[in-house]
Amino acid sequence: MKAKVHVTLKRGVLDPQGKAIAHALNSLGFDEVLEVRQGKVIELDLRETPPDQVQARLDAMCRALLANTVIEDYRIEL
Amino acid sequence: MKAKVHVTLKRGVLDPQGKAIAHALNSLGFDEVLEVRQGKVIELDLRETPPDQVQARLDAMCRALLANTVIEDYRIEL
Repeated sequence: MKAKVHVTLKRGVLDPQGKAIAHALNSLGFDEVLEVRQGKVIELDLRETPPDQVQARLDAMCRALLANTVIEDYRIEL
Repeated sequence: MKAKVHVTLKRGVLDPQGKAIAHALNSLGFDEVLEVRQGKVIELDLRETPPDQVQARLDAMCRALLANTVIEDYRIEL
């Protein structure tokens, strides 16, 4: 089975990479770009897991490794 | 207005970062993880643009900067 985890910086946390992208797009003539923030998507291919456990297992993976919950939010998509 | 661009490696392109994540998750006891692939999400905040032009403008941004179309696919979400 497949699952996706979206990891994004929390509001208020500086995103220098996003800023660099915004600046580069403006330089290329895309003046309509006001702000850019960059996040990650982690696509997981999982062995079949009981449906009532998948969410909890993914949550544990996020807390253990996939997201830095001090500065990042995550969202699980099944 | 907001837009999101999802950038993922094409099927068949090696993803060492994904492999490292899968290996780390397995080491942490998440044995159900078979494969991991990592992609990017770029969230853009745009000045109001005529709706018939937004898609084309974002497409141009992807081709010019956001995605390397040789090895990456992109998907625009408005």
